[in-house]
Amino acid sequence: MALIRKKKGNFLEDFRVGHIFQHKCGKTVTEGLFNTFTEFNMTTNPLSKNLRYARQYGFRGMVVPPGLVMNIVLSQSVEDISENARANLEYINMRFGAPVYIGDTIEVTSTVLGVKPSTRDPVLGVVHVQTTGRNQDNHVVLTYERKVQVWKDDPKADVKETSAEKIEEVPCTPQLPAYDTSRRYGDLAHLSSPDTYFEDFTPGDHIEHSRGRVMTSEHVALTAMLDNTSQVHSNQFMIDQNPERYVGGQLIVYGGIPFNLCLGLSCPDIADNALTDIIYRTGRHTAPLFAGDTAFASTEIRGTRDWPERPDLGILETTLRGHKFVRKDGRPERVEIFYLEREIAVKRRSHYC
Amino acid sequence: MALIRKKKGNFLEDFRVGHIFQHKCGKTVTEGLFNTFTEFNMTTNPLSKNLRYARQYGFRGMVVPPGLVMNIVLSQSVEDISENARANLEYINMRFGAPVYIGDTIEVTSTVLGVKPSTRDPVLGVVHVQTTGRNQDNHVVLTYERKVQVWKDDPKADVKETSAEKIEEVPCTPQLPAYDTSRRYGDLAHLSSPDTYFEDFTPGDHIEHSRGRVMTSEHVALTAMLDNTSQVHSNQFMIDQNPERYVGGQLIVYGGIPFNLCLGLSCPDIADNALTDIIYRTGRHTAPLFAGDTAFASTEIRGTRDWPERPDLGILETTLRGHKFVRKDGRPERVEIFYLEREIAVKRRSHYC
Amino acid sequence: MALIRKKKGNFLEDFRVGHIFQHKCGKTVTEGLFNTFTEFNMTTNPLSKNLRYARQYGFRGMVVPPGLVMNIVLSQSVEDISENARANLEYINMRFGAPVYIGDTIEVTSTVLGVKPSTRDPVLGVVHVQTTGRNQDNHVVLTYERKVQVWKDDPKADVKETSAEKIEEVPCTPQLPAYDTSRRYGDLAHLSSPDTYFEDFTPGDHIEHSRGRVMTSEHVALTAMLDNTSQVHSNQFMIDQNPERYVGGQLIVYGGIPFNLCLGLSCPDIADNALTDIIYRTGRHTAPLFAGDTAFASTEIRGTRDWPERPDLGILETTLRGHKFVRKDGRPERVEIFYLEREIAVKRRSHYC
Repeated sequence: MALIRKKKGNFLEDFRVGHIFQHKCGKTVTEGLFNTFTEFNMTTNPLSKNLRYARQYGFRGMVVPPGLVMNIVLSQSVEDISENARANLEYINMRFGAPVYIGDTIEVTSTVLGVKPSTRDPVLGVVHVQTTGRNQDNHVVLTYERKVQVWKDDPKADVKETSAEKIEEVPCTPQLPAYDTSRRYGDLAHLSSPDTYFEDFTPGDHIEHSRGRVMTSEHVALTAMLDNTSQVHSNQFMIDQNPERYVGGQLIVYGGIPFNLCLGLSCPDIADNALTDIIYRTGRHTAPLFAGDTAFASTEIRGTRDWPERPDLGILETTLRGHKFVRKDGRPERVEIFYLEREIAVKRRSHYC
Repeated sequence: MALIRKKKGNFLEDFRVGHIFQHKCGKTVTEGLFNTFTEFNMTTNPLSKNLRYARQYGFRGMVVPPGLVMNIVLSQSVEDISENARANLEYINMRFGAPVYIGDTIEVTSTVLGVKPSTRDPVLGVVHVQTTGRNQDNHVVLTYERKVQVWKDDPKADVKETSAEKIEEVPCTPQLPAYDTSRRYGDLAHLSSPDTYFEDFTPGDHIEHSRGRVMTSEHVALTAMLDNTSQVHSNQFMIDQNPERYVGGQLIVYGGIPFNLCLGLSCPDIADNALTDIIYRTGRHTAPLFAGDTAFASTEIRGTRDWPERPDLGILETTLRGHKFVRKDGRPERVEIFYLEREIAVKRRSHYC
Repeated sequence: MALIRKKKGNFLEDFRVGHIFQHKCGKTVTEGLFNTFTEFNMTTNPLSKNLRYARQYGFRGMVVPPGLVMNIVLSQSVEDISENARANLEYINMRFGAPVYIGDTIEVTSTVLGVKPSTRDPVLGVVHVQTTGRNQDNHVVLTYERKVQVWKDDPKADVKETSAEKIEEVPCTPQLPAYDTSRRYGDLAHLSSPDTYFEDFTPGDHIEHSRGRVMTSEHVALTAMLDNTSQVHSNQFMIDQNPERYVGGQLIVYGGIPFNLCLGLSCPDIADNALTDIIYRTGRHTAPLFAGDTAFASTEIRGTRDWPERPDLGILETTLRGHKFVRKDGRPERVEIFYLEREIAVKRRSHYC
């Protein structure tokens, strides 16, 4: 007979470079999950909202938007990688592959690329992993690296800095239906915004997206819906017992939610005519979001380039930023909450109108 | 290089009588959207809740309830018509056509019928539109007129009163499965309420529906789920910056939500045995609803009449009202929030029991 | 012409032993309902989350988890049985039958087994019912007895104690796919937790589940989604008018929600490798849950036994308890909110790894 207090997740000393986690559970995309996450962030691309449009473009069904793909894959890795994390430091080289549809089942693995103890704080360190999600046909839907600041379980555990000699890049490029003029894209042109074709963007443009969206206590249910079990997002009692220990002394909104919100709020101005997100070279959360905050987004066009294999599309190199306002000396001060270097494939008006 | 602040939606001076908007995006009804909106308002008609029942009645699947049909169609028109509206003045001649099912894709158009500058307030005016939603087979599912009070962008813009010479009525009548005794409706009679057949209603009856439903901050997510982008429902920061400008100084609940709530709360007493809503002759929001308010509903039976083509059904002419209570001098005072003249087709006990 | 205030539900004097209620409406399980309820409680068994896994185990699709089956069946009975209840006293002999899948339609009946007026409070009494849910093929999915404390409508109504001479047990045992080594279960073993096979449990073990989950105002929408119409869960105005009359002076969270939460929070430690819940011998709510409370759970292993027909499975006899913390003299005091004697069928490592 025993009193058992199960510990979940791994701690800094548990990670070994080269170890491959096959994360538990997996997740099938139901119409409920799809609807909740496609809609809460006010996204507008008809590929994710209009079945007739998605099919006429050659997709099998409505396309799961990039923010939900990212959230499904990342959340499956939370228990093993970041349940005992203090902070999510960086997303690196996040690339999209096969489109994800309602009914698909996503399963996820992670490889440990590096472990580095903190020089400043002996109870902390950084874990560097490569995480990959695959669908039921074993096609890669997303792969990325992540750096996470993780607690030690035993403060005295001896952890040496180690890293993989070489990072093998997981093959992963967007799988899109071929361009095919028999599809009569022009008949659908009124369904997406008329001023967000590739030709409409100029490097240097800085677009302030006009809409804001307040985050309510809904974030607790959204986080559970993603299987993200990190207690700082759902355990109010734990926070109340020791508010100084936790950022802001309240439940912090899981980062995947502002990530998703920024993608959605920017969509009507940037991605209404995108066929896919390609890569997020780097991304990070620069300040926390709490229930009651209103999130906003802006996009900087850093560059535009051709996509040789796809003359119908161009690649937009952007920086997506999220922000909120906090009171300081009685005035609202703009605070950046999110930064993402994002490349997307956008239709050319010449080919689609 | 440019700093771009995109303006969304049209302003009073942008509207031209006769112009037809083909609204963007369109919306496919997922099981997620269906479930959230069919359930949040406590509706009880088994056509929308029990697949076995709906099929035995000859419907292809569970039927999207009228409040959700209305919300889908209206919300698709918001960006073009009312993103810059101050108030929704009136719904007129709202008529239901083909039933809507899970998996259907609804696309929407609006024709401008009139523009009228305000004589009292030079920055405002009224736009009169006719909006129509169609499914993927191009069948009309809903059509209605709406009058909206819209801001000018340029306060000095010169706007003349204009109106269409003639309003062409869009053909739209309910499409119901035929009455067919081989369906053995009586076997299902226990699944709907026993005292809401056509024979049970008497003109002059005034029914206070017993249930109340508090509105929580869920309204922000519900509104986003409908693609309704009006900022007064979701941008808490905007309200906080200038609370005097906005009704009540807080986020106002999008009108389609109390509209839907009133339909749901009245359902067990009025529409449990309805096969379809037919027409809403006029409707309006008479006071705002806020998070924390509890909504109630009542129905007045104004008349009953035969439906010559359908001897199995009778038409109930009702007025549906919503109300809430506000504190005044320490006491709760009943305030009407919604008014709708509503006609529905109700089963006759003689044919269905 | 009449002012009608409809009363919903039955009162103590309305119940007759032997009467069978065929409850109204019925409920089809959409992907929206499934997603919301499978996820909000942080359950982890892949049978309800991973379609590939569920099918390889021989199930037709993802399996509706036991807490949602229970909630669907119970909620269908609320209007007839407990809309006018003061408290839910006990669940008895709750047994699971055919698995429930997305798309199934559940319809419910209840038989009155006993009526007993209170000796202490003349306006109250206890109603004892047996409630059974069946799917569209008329297979029993759940059956249980329930004792509910119900108000009289007429305080002077004379109610005599009566009870059924004999309680006929409704045949109901779990229907599971056969064990079949050709299914290669081992290939999926990484998807469920490695330390929750039958061999891992010892009578006397007491497991404190590590996760907590705050309940937000979401409970109002969750309750509506289940068709549970009891006003103490949704009518804030009613509570505010007479707070002393209602437990805690605020909206009380519908019991099915903490019931479900406790099942979910315990899942990773207890039921990740369960194929079905078998029976809940007795269960009760020992304290109310309110919005803002954080729920926790613990499980005591009371016994383990073989299941002769299924050598691949063992039966775990457990007690599941829920708790929260309330401030008392400035300190958090642990308060039990839920008690359930629960037996589940758990895979043996010897057969599945």
